[in-house]
Amino acid sequence: MTSPTQALAEELIRRPSVTPDDAGCQDLLAARLAPLGFRIERLRFGQVDNLWARRGTTHPVVCFAGHTDVVPPGPREAWRSDPFTPTVHEAHLYGRGAADMKTSLAAFITAIERFLEAHPDSAGSIALLITSDEEGAAVDGTVKVVDMLAARGETLDYCVVGEPTAVARTGDMIKNGRRGSLSGRLVVKGIQGHVAYPQLAKNPIHLVAPAIAELAATQWDHGNDYFPPTTFQISNIHGGTGATNVIPASVEILFNFRFSTASTVDSLKQQVHAILDRHSLEYELTWECSGQPFLTPRGELVAAVAEAIRAVTGLEPELSTTGGTSDGRFIARICPQVVEVGPPNATIHKVNECVPLADIETLSAIYTGILERLLCR
Amino acid sequence: MTSPTQALAEELIRRPSVTPDDAGCQDLLAARLAPLGFRIERLRFGQVDNLWARRGTTHPVVCFAGHTDVVPPGPREAWRSDPFTPTVHEAHLYGRGAADMKTSLAAFITAIERFLEAHPDSAGSIALLITSDEEGAAVDGTVKVVDMLAARGETLDYCVVGEPTAVARTGDMIKNGRRGSLSGRLVVKGIQGHVAYPQLAKNPIHLVAPAIAELAATQWDHGNDYFPPTTFQISNIHGGTGATNVIPASVEILFNFRFSTASTVDSLKQQVHAILDRHSLEYELTWECSGQPFLTPRGELVAAVAEAIRAVTGLEPELSTTGGTSDGRFIARICPQVVEVGPPNATIHKVNECVPLADIETLSAIYTGILERLLCR
Repeated sequence: MTSPTQALAEELIRRPSVTPDDAGCQDLLAARLAPLGFRIERLRFGQVDNLWARRGTTHPVVCFAGHTDVVPPGPREAWRSDPFTPTVHEAHLYGRGAADMKTSLAAFITAIERFLEAHPDSAGSIALLITSDEEGAAVDGTVKVVDMLAARGETLDYCVVGEPTAVARTGDMIKNGRRGSLSGRLVVKGIQGHVAYPQLAKNPIHLVAPAIAELAATQWDHGNDYFPPTTFQISNIHGGTGATNVIPASVEILFNFRFSTASTVDSLKQQVHAILDRHSLEYELTWECSGQPFLTPRGELVAAVAEAIRAVTGLEPELSTTGGTSDGRFIARICPQVVEVGPPNATIHKVNECVPLADIETLSAIYTGILERLLCR
Repeated sequence: MTSPTQALAEELIRRPSVTPDDAGCQDLLAARLAPLGFRIERLRFGQVDNLWARRGTTHPVVCFAGHTDVVPPGPREAWRSDPFTPTVHEAHLYGRGAADMKTSLAAFITAIERFLEAHPDSAGSIALLITSDEEGAAVDGTVKVVDMLAARGETLDYCVVGEPTAVARTGDMIKNGRRGSLSGRLVVKGIQGHVAYPQLAKNPIHLVAPAIAELAATQWDHGNDYFPPTTFQISNIHGGTGATNVIPASVEILFNFRFSTASTVDSLKQQVHAILDRHSLEYELTWECSGQPFLTPRGELVAAVAEAIRAVTGLEPELSTTGGTSDGRFIARICPQVVEVGPPNATIHKVNECVPLADIETLSAIYTGILERLLCR
């Protein structure tokens, strides 16, 4: 028999909500939350649907956060079953979004229902912050809802993001932070000329090579208790027109930092400029910070999540800050403690995305356990 | 009144002989040479017309070499007059090929005519080696004619190539050699991956940077009395797919040596491999030598050319080996002494290519003076 969380996850998977299309998922969530006493705000920014729901007016505020959008499924024929037809096969639920992150959304709802049935008059507030643009530009999604909440002075105390964080079994890993992401586009200028007359030209590829070598060898920081050291990687380098007898006028380099809380955007920018200047380069450099790092050190939320996981699964969750950026970086602005916990992520963004059936109610039970530990003391 | 050399140059310019099209230029030359007693061979290889003409059967053989083809004129509207309509303006003859090198071809003919009128029974032989593919692939041109001459054991003693070598005035510079050109295509391999997980990847851009720095800083040789030191230049570097979150699997680098007779193809290859290997790079490297260097040290031919220039112009010609490659590199295989002398090259390959009217008969007189000095001793 299909469990309540699985049933709701299947309903969500059936809606082909490819970024930024919500495809009715938030209607489904709102219809379940309204009878529980949630005040629902539907916020459409640009092409993005967002949902902010809150039950209660007092602190502490425990918020569940996530997204209804999914990445495109890719070619249908590469899937063993239709990506938008939830299908059970060998004890797994298959479908685009099964792991990232419609099962988590369903588990939020059933966890809240179960918790409120047992504790109808609990202290504090429960909230949900749901967007349909986490996988895309992430411009009109969570960040805009957080802007709105910040503008009206609404703050959160604890936030659980339902991103798929588990390695093998739900509960084996949680993310208590994420590195920041800082990108740069560097154009180093030379003087164009004929390769036969290099004395009349300045080769920007030659000029920049020692600087690249130094950038690649630099130890930017040593990380800290929660973060590995900051990394620097060049993703693209392009110089030359294809003509083999021309020294190009410039070379373009795109690079990216994944940085820990042991560095800051400013400290990294400063170090890069110092290296380029030391090599006497003439250059243009434009920066884009697509995500500040965030960190939730061990404390009430990490403890509550870890205890809930232990109680439900017997696992001792590992704390991790690796991986890409997540919407947690935006929520951290109005919430001092943000943790991500969700199902195994081995199949996300791939064909035949799936989640183990056994993990579906486990995840809901963990979320209930978190609410109990934070709101029933 | 139009001088004989200018008149013939104009006839040649009127023929739009864009590489590899001869457009009838060699017919014109052959029609002038046949009455002088030249045995004419028309040699078509692929799409290229070549002409080998020789008068006499004994040594020394003095050969004039050049090409009838021209580079494309580019947009008509950028020219002050039609590029294939020879036009005199402010004491210059304008037209595509005016300097590179139809005036030289015309001067060969009138110089020979003048010489033979004065010395109908001179010793030795006079020859012309003309191609229509010097500006292009240079595969079916001079190199093929030289192959043929070598195959039948025909050797030359002195060769004057009519390339435009002058800086300001005809006679101010001659080329007694050219550097070689050796090109390489280097592909350095890494392991593709996500920029957020560099520990799972190997960034080929980072790996190659110190090697590029070393290649760019290397002193390959010190040149010699005739040549400046060998130069190394990277013309192109490309790595990355455009995606800013992917460490690329490889980076491609195109480079070129212009090398003196102080280095050899093998010595340069060996040094490059040693540097790449010292940096423990995994790479593929393909080489192409598009021209061996050649050198004609001071001797009979250089002396004859310099004396002829002094007698006609009063200038003391500078010896030079700079610039790109020329067909001289092929002729050097069957001719121990090769020198290039022609009109000013400031406008070659540009719009409004032109030659000073005053230099046209000067050049013809220099060529006659060379014949006199080499064949009338």
